[in-house]
Amino acid sequence: MVSRERLEQQLQHLQTITTPGAGEGINRLAFTESDEEGRRYITSLMEEAGLSIRQDAFGNVIGHLAGRDESLPAVMFGSHSDSVPSGGNFDGIVGILAAVEVVRSMKEDGFVPDCPLEVVLFRCEESGRFGTATLGSRAMRGELTTADLMRFKDKDGISLYDALESCGLDPAHIETAKYTRPLKAFFEVHIEQGKVLEHRKIPLGVVTGIAAPTRMRVYIHGNADHSGATPMPLRHDGACAAAEIILAVEKAAAARKEPPVVGTVGIVRVHPCAMNVIPGEVELGIDIRSISAEAKASTVADVKLAVEEICARRDIPVTIEDISNGTPVVMEEPVVKFLDAMCEKAGVPYIEMPSGAGHDTMHWVGYVPAGMLFIPCKDGISHNPAESAELDDIVRVTRALSEAVRTVSAKAFSF
Amino acid sequence: MVSRERLEQQLQHLQTITTPGAGEGINRLAFTESDEEGRRYITSLMEEAGLSIRQDAFGNVIGHLAGRDESLPAVMFGSHSDSVPSGGNFDGIVGILAAVEVVRSMKEDGFVPDCPLEVVLFRCEESGRFGTATLGSRAMRGELTTADLMRFKDKDGISLYDALESCGLDPAHIETAKYTRPLKAFFEVHIEQGKVLEHRKIPLGVVTGIAAPTRMRVYIHGNADHSGATPMPLRHDGACAAAEIILAVEKAAAARKEPPVVGTVGIVRVHPCAMNVIPGEVELGIDIRSISAEAKASTVADVKLAVEEICARRDIPVTIEDISNGTPVVMEEPVVKFLDAMCEKAGVPYIEMPSGAGHDTMHWVGYVPAGMLFIPCKDGISHNPAESAELDDIVRVTRALSEAVRTVSAKAFSF
Repeated sequence: MVSRERLEQQLQHLQTITTPGAGEGINRLAFTESDEEGRRYITSLMEEAGLSIRQDAFGNVIGHLAGRDESLPAVMFGSHSDSVPSGGNFDGIVGILAAVEVVRSMKEDGFVPDCPLEVVLFRCEESGRFGTATLGSRAMRGELTTADLMRFKDKDGISLYDALESCGLDPAHIETAKYTRPLKAFFEVHIEQGKVLEHRKIPLGVVTGIAAPTRMRVYIHGNADHSGATPMPLRHDGACAAAEIILAVEKAAAARKEPPVVGTVGIVRVHPCAMNVIPGEVELGIDIRSISAEAKASTVADVKLAVEEICARRDIPVTIEDISNGTPVVMEEPVVKFLDAMCEKAGVPYIEMPSGAGHDTMHWVGYVPAGMLFIPCKDGISHNPAESAELDDIVRVTRALSEAVRTVSAKAFSF
Repeated sequence: MVSRERLEQQLQHLQTITTPGAGEGINRLAFTESDEEGRRYITSLMEEAGLSIRQDAFGNVIGHLAGRDESLPAVMFGSHSDSVPSGGNFDGIVGILAAVEVVRSMKEDGFVPDCPLEVVLFRCEESGRFGTATLGSRAMRGELTTADLMRFKDKDGISLYDALESCGLDPAHIETAKYTRPLKAFFEVHIEQGKVLEHRKIPLGVVTGIAAPTRMRVYIHGNADHSGATPMPLRHDGACAAAEIILAVEKAAAARKEPPVVGTVGIVRVHPCAMNVIPGEVELGIDIRSISAEAKASTVADVKLAVEEICARRDIPVTIEDISNGTPVVMEEPVVKFLDAMCEKAGVPYIEMPSGAGHDTMHWVGYVPAGMLFIPCKDGISHNPAESAELDDIVRVTRALSEAVRTVSAKAFSF
């Protein structure tokens, strides 16, 4: 039986693990001491649940439960525990706690799966530190090279390579992190991070597709002249160019209504950022998403054209750096229908819905039958100290995940 | 005789005094160790020139040269040595080195003034650290209270009060910094920080008026939601509101051509500044200037209206904090004509011109006959590592200042 008490207590404990003085909410930025502490706690829960722990070269933690027949392909499920700066305690956490609880309750119930189970705690899912997301899954899928690890840097100039090394990992052999065991299925539970379920008053969403982001950085090279002595017509103000670009991103995304596109300039850094100096160098971080690859690509093209036009008109040199260009993924129909059936079996009302946010799951779709379950979050707020989800919904989704894992793990089951 | 060699050597030495690792150019932010080091060096030059040194409660350094008749009102001249972040080596420095050289060459020439001379090294002229400028002059004019010192804070939350205390000064008795000796005249030499002299190919400008800034901070309280899962119509994006405000400031200033107005959003801070979070809290620092009080006031009113309209339309709460509202000053006609005559006497071509930038001098206009001399700076660039001025122009303006000081210091002279 899924234990409401355990889930509640574990959530409360994780609430206390955050970098002191880093601001409101949860601060467990990847590869920081608070991130490590969160991972140690979750690893201890995995051990209590009877899982054998291993860690790969990227620091992803995998807990193994032996099945009756270890030669069968495994069922993998889990999520992440790092946070954005000033984030909430549910993003990622709900998924990894649900996964551990599925195993723990299974052991208590005396249920032994035919095939092995692999509970995975992904590392560095959030892009808050290195500007690019789901790095743990990318390492497990063999998509990260040593060159990538050196290229991705945080705002203090620390490379992902150095961050891995400082945690005692072995970035020079990142290729060993590639996951090679045969898999039968992959599942992830997550908060919706949007308002759809709350608005429809439905406790569970079966995800049909995931909108992957296209990300770029724009470096505007304006002139940092004196703010009092430089007449308006002689200026090359980096902040004014940045302002036009921010509004161009908003306009290009908002213009696409079906399929919808979202566009965000989440990073704005102005140099030297002083009252009496016209901004010279300005850095922008742009994130554009859609579940339609076509709608996203045309929005990105519009934004790039706008950046060039704005900076040419203002006679300000500009550099656009492409960071990532994820392909939106569509879940396999049999997996969606299977999860629909598991929600029904668990007695939980559900709808099918797309995901606007990216998740580790998107790297597993296509490689293995992969599915996701969403629960509502209050006011759709996530990546924010006000992030909140109901314990009742967490218990419900854990029960649905449990049904899915127990059913899929049967030797006789196939999609 | 004014010494070109000394001025050159002193400029070169000051070029080496900057905070290590703080970025390109000169970093002598007020009350930092590099600022202290610059002040110690200039104080040593003042001593070499025969000046007796004293320091007031704000840390302004005043070097006294006795006149034939110490009961006569003194002639004061000088400038500052602090810099903006990543600034140049001429802003302020040209003025204080010229002042010291005037005294040194006077002693060498055996010239003894009738009245005493006071060479002043103002502290914290730049607003780069505390968001408000010419603090040393304001302290000397008795315009700073202990409450002000506590209110002005840098980006790390350190108050001006604490900064003064950490330098061994006595902010609790800031009122003792008020300058009370009788003065006959005040002069300051400075780089233009604009392109007018360079464009006209004239080595000297006699300043007719100074455009004081009106400054405010705008705090935009948007919602820091998930950048992927929040549809465009449901957003309250702080960066988009900020972008509209930045462009509104540019438009309002550019619309006023005669008398001209300049408007700058030099400070832009976005929170949490992460790729996958919509900006919530955004802070802007706005600086608006004109030599016309009326044109400036109407621009400020337009900007405030725009801020309210933009944030109301986007349903984002906003707070406007007024920082300062300086009154543009107009130099007394007899002082301007006197300086014209001194340029002619020194054999240096000049024009009369207004100052777009604020200077310590503006606090002395009205209290004492006060004047300023400008020299060109390359491409009009200032507050930037590329800031540059010609040694020939520095020598010329030092000669003109020397003529002015020697002439005014005569007991028989009156404006």
